[in-house]
Amino acid sequence: MEIKAGALLQTIDSPADLKKLSKSQMQQVVDELRQYIIDVVSVHGGHFGASLGVVELSVALHYVFNTPYDQLVWDVGHQAYGHKILTGRRDIFPTNRKYHGISGFPKRSESEYDTFGVGHSSTSISAALGMAMASYYKGEKDRQHIAVIGDGAMTAGLAFEAMNHAGAANSNVLIILNDNCMSIDPNVGALKEYLTDITTSHTYNKVKDDVWNLLGKLPVGKSFSRSMAQKLTDGIKGMVSSSANLFEALGLRYFGPIDGHNVSKLIDTFKDLKDIPGPKILHIKTVKGKGYDLAEKDQTLWHAPGLFDKVTGEIRKKTFDIPQPPKYQDVFGHTIIELAEQNEKIMGITPAMPSGSSLKYMMEKMPDRAFDVGICEQHAVTLSAGLATQGMKVFCNIYSSFMQRAYDMVVHDVAIQKLPVIFCLDRAGLVGEDGPTHHGCYDIAYMRCIPNMVISAPMNESELRNLMYTAQLDSNKLPFVIRYPRGEGVMPEWRTAMKEIKIGTGRKLKDGNDIAILSIGHPGNFAATAIREVKADGINPAHYDMRFVKPLDEEMLHEVFGKFTKVITIEDGTVVGGFGSAVLEFMNEHGYKADVRIMGIPDRLVEHGTPKQLYEEIGIDAHAIATMLREMTAVKVLV
Amino acid sequence: MEIKAGALLQTIDSPADLKKLSKSQMQQVVDELRQYIIDVVSVHGGHFGASLGVVELSVALHYVFNTPYDQLVWDVGHQAYGHKILTGRRDIFPTNRKYHGISGFPKRSESEYDTFGVGHSSTSISAALGMAMASYYKGEKDRQHIAVIGDGAMTAGLAFEAMNHAGAANSNVLIILNDNCMSIDPNVGALKEYLTDITTSHTYNKVKDDVWNLLGKLPVGKSFSRSMAQKLTDGIKGMVSSSANLFEALGLRYFGPIDGHNVSKLIDTFKDLKDIPGPKILHIKTVKGKGYDLAEKDQTLWHAPGLFDKVTGEIRKKTFDIPQPPKYQDVFGHTIIELAEQNEKIMGITPAMPSGSSLKYMMEKMPDRAFDVGICEQHAVTLSAGLATQGMKVFCNIYSSFMQRAYDMVVHDVAIQKLPVIFCLDRAGLVGEDGPTHHGCYDIAYMRCIPNMVISAPMNESELRNLMYTAQLDSNKLPFVIRYPRGEGVMPEWRTAMKEIKIGTGRKLKDGNDIAILSIGHPGNFAATAIREVKADGINPAHYDMRFVKPLDEEMLHEVFGKFTKVITIEDGTVVGGFGSAVLEFMNEHGYKADVRIMGIPDRLVEHGTPKQLYEEIGIDAHAIATMLREMTAVKVLV
Repeated sequence: MEIKAGALLQTIDSPADLKKLSKSQMQQVVDELRQYIIDVVSVHGGHFGASLGVVELSVALHYVFNTPYDQLVWDVGHQAYGHKILTGRRDIFPTNRKYHGISGFPKRSESEYDTFGVGHSSTSISAALGMAMASYYKGEKDRQHIAVIGDGAMTAGLAFEAMNHAGAANSNVLIILNDNCMSIDPNVGALKEYLTDITTSHTYNKVKDDVWNLLGKLPVGKSFSRSMAQKLTDGIKGMVSSSANLFEALGLRYFGPIDGHNVSKLIDTFKDLKDIPGPKILHIKTVKGKGYDLAEKDQTLWHAPGLFDKVTGEIRKKTFDIPQPPKYQDVFGHTIIELAEQNEKIMGITPAMPSGSSLKYMMEKMPDRAFDVGICEQHAVTLSAGLATQGMKVFCNIYSSFMQRAYDMVVHDVAIQKLPVIFCLDRAGLVGEDGPTHHGCYDIAYMRCIPNMVISAPMNESELRNLMYTAQLDSNKLPFVIRYPRGEGVMPEWRTAMKEIKIGTGRKLKDGNDIAILSIGHPGNFAATAIREVKADGINPAHYDMRFVKPLDEEMLHEVFGKFTKVITIEDGTVVGGFGSAVLEFMNEHGYKADVRIMGIPDRLVEHGTPKQLYEEIGIDAHAIATMLREMTAVKVLV
Repeated sequence: MEIKAGALLQTIDSPADLKKLSKSQMQQVVDELRQYIIDVVSVHGGHFGASLGVVELSVALHYVFNTPYDQLVWDVGHQAYGHKILTGRRDIFPTNRKYHGISGFPKRSESEYDTFGVGHSSTSISAALGMAMASYYKGEKDRQHIAVIGDGAMTAGLAFEAMNHAGAANSNVLIILNDNCMSIDPNVGALKEYLTDITTSHTYNKVKDDVWNLLGKLPVGKSFSRSMAQKLTDGIKGMVSSSANLFEALGLRYFGPIDGHNVSKLIDTFKDLKDIPGPKILHIKTVKGKGYDLAEKDQTLWHAPGLFDKVTGEIRKKTFDIPQPPKYQDVFGHTIIELAEQNEKIMGITPAMPSGSSLKYMMEKMPDRAFDVGICEQHAVTLSAGLATQGMKVFCNIYSSFMQRAYDMVVHDVAIQKLPVIFCLDRAGLVGEDGPTHHGCYDIAYMRCIPNMVISAPMNESELRNLMYTAQLDSNKLPFVIRYPRGEGVMPEWRTAMKEIKIGTGRKLKDGNDIAILSIGHPGNFAATAIREVKADGINPAHYDMRFVKPLDEEMLHEVFGKFTKVITIEDGTVVGGFGSAVLEFMNEHGYKADVRIMGIPDRLVEHGTPKQLYEEIGIDAHAIATMLREMTAVKVLV
């Protein structure tokens, strides 16, 4: 069924069309845009709450500013659906996040209105400042540069670094702080308290107005001289104007807070702000999920709810006749509690992903031992290092692609000091619909080159539990990475008894002739399927689940290269410097010669789609492995 | 000549000895400690200004707090010399930064007083907070956790992330903001302005006192009611107490600023602060280089001046009869100006290393095109990406080990968007005396796994110039890494004419028989020396300077593996996933079999020492290459 946009929205193919309408029509555009997002996302899926919260903002920005000449950077781009619909992508919006469809995030190659690709948070101010500095240098003094950033994203250090620079640079940057008290989960930290504080009645702005009003009424008389009154006025002005507000302390002119759901007020405010040069920040208050009642009430659930019935609000869940395997995330979330009940040294840390990582279960059950530290991967890792110096066994759970942000902390604070922090790298491999900014392609390569690291990946739920168990034992003295993918494993009966795995040992899953498969992590299941598939062809590969990328099971590899001259390595990570390369390094060191095929994520960007589509595209699914097995064994026959 | 510590300092073998002395003796300890640092550093070298600036602080902290039970984390540890001398390392302090001597930074394996290893900046608050959270969990309520951090380090996002968490957590952390307005170079950014503002007379604290005093004198009469007066008072109190100060806005109780060179005042203040639970910040003002006149006057020069005559202040420079090769840094610094004079799109960015990188020359000459953005590598990279979207050719110069901090920005903001930012990775390879926190070992591996990257390394000054020239041409459409080591190149006559190098092409330096050397970057010179050395043995290796790690010169490699079955690869980066591994991947893909020896930095931490000592230790200097050449060619004779 085709989803139709409302009457006005139908006419808007670009911001130029929007600008033809009167200001009084903007509320209708807002309503139609919001409805269109609800209509499409309920049927086609995608992020939901964030874009609903910025419908008014999206309309007002494109109505007032001269985009794309004026440059608009959306932080954590999943809030940009309204922006996409208003900038020529209305009719293809139903392809959002689908294979070969438009991206769920702004993307430079997709539209000139998408000035900067954003998937990870907190980049927008730096990017907009860069654009503004270029404009300044080129003499384009009229050009506006706008970063829209949430209060959650504001907690990341990058945003602070950018504000510190913007406040001292004379560039034309408008930061719009979209304050909804939320990341995916409720936002945390002192900044959140502060923002709440300055937007409630007993606060800075109201106080400022009150004090200002009262200053006008100061009496001057015998006991209170004119000079004293002046001193008081100056003193208060000094405090209020230059250092009374956190953002003003950072050199930004602060405006607001204003209601981010009042499109008329937003339009008026932007018209005023356009004429004020220099770095400035506008604080707007919005509600995530605005306009869809259920989404306003449970903002975490409705961040990206999947498909739902827009009338009843029922979220469509697949049902199954037989028990299904759990998500790796939930195995982590429940297993850490089991372990923590046995080992009082265990703590859990997540940077703003309690729901996504399932650490939320431990946070509920053991609030003094599991913490959401906000969007700050760097701090999460160094904090974990600090905890580890005191003998704590810290499970620091960070998505593979977000761990890129804490790379130096892994090297400098953890590995160099040999602190046994446990890094659970969630969403390793191809994550699917979020696409290239979120794929966890590089972690094997970027972790493997660091000394002192243990790097492991479980093939199934039971192995994940065993690796978690092993990592927290006192016998482990090293930083310990456990990487696993987003989504389901393979074992419906997953609550197996946990046992120690000797670090650096793999499992021989089956013997075979002629050819061996060395797999790491979940793709071992693709290999197992392929092996069943080629049985009919009379091909009988051996299969080794290596479990550890570092240290490699050298004894096992000596067996493999002693017996086989045809070897396939399979991993859900890049083929450049990854697990396959580790095997090549081993072979080279020990003088083994063999025909090795490295199957993994190719050295190019992989776009978005379902993981199944993507693994098929890059050729590392079961079918591709079976094809490779046939090809490599067929060559033998020919020789 | 033995350097003797003063009479009191002689008696202090641990903080327990310090505590036996009276408070009135602390000034003498301060004086002797300062003199001892001057005496030793002038003769043995090391960082200078930072430690001189915190002599009083070091003494006061160990006098008041119960270290090591109370935990003291020194940010950017090169300020910790006083701390080291007071904590049992007085007599071995002359071995500071020397091969097999003590580290120039706090190091956990060196002393129980060194609670956290610090070389990179801005980690101290996160680490101390982790320690404090562990203490809180264990019920050690009396335990103190202290982070000493400079105003320069405070600009890094990690410090902000940690403050945001500390301000909301109920942990016992004392942050000491050591405000000296300096990083290695003068500090920059809005925070610096703010700190200057609150410590000068027209500011927050004075204003606060003034307003407070005046409030007591408020008249109440006909025109100014009691309730209005009360409202004004409350309003001002509200502003001043909860949101008037940037740090208080972040939930930290703010104290100061106080004079950091008044040891008595520091001692009294610490005694007071010990009894105040929760997160708090003490702002102290110090002078970098305090007590050594020249160092106070030119703080950048005296950050780490090398050896000097402590009486005359003359810095000892080696003199040479013949012209010497320049530092790679200076080649960069002068060449970027030459290029920028031709290409108006060129800009330069450095995160707080204008002197170290030599970008300072461009900053002086073209202040609108070259910028120091402060200690914030993350922002530096994303800002560069923003500039690149506007067509600017940005040379973003970051030390190899510091680039670890901006890894996600390289992936997410630059590589995924294919923005042609030029990364000059200074201090690649072993840096020498700064040791494992600063060695640039991993960049080839962590950059090589990212799609779209060009990765190069020049063997000499002329090649550096050619690579810089090539990178800024419009024909280059990709992110372009140029990595080079700290220190001198090999060409006294280095101002060669610049020419384009076809991306992904190497140079054959010489033909040979039997064996080939593939080198990348500066170690190609070690190889060239080795080749000269083995000539007498009748060994005649071919030598290829590959110039690019990515893309590899495949045509050249086909030639090499078509002709040679013995190959040595040589690089000043890790052997795990580095250049050698790239060669193995090529061989594997094309089915070449050869005896390959990968020479590089081994997969373990390499400690500090001179680069010469370290390259000898790990066996990749000319001598080691020659030995390898003899060994590999000798094997042939035996077969």
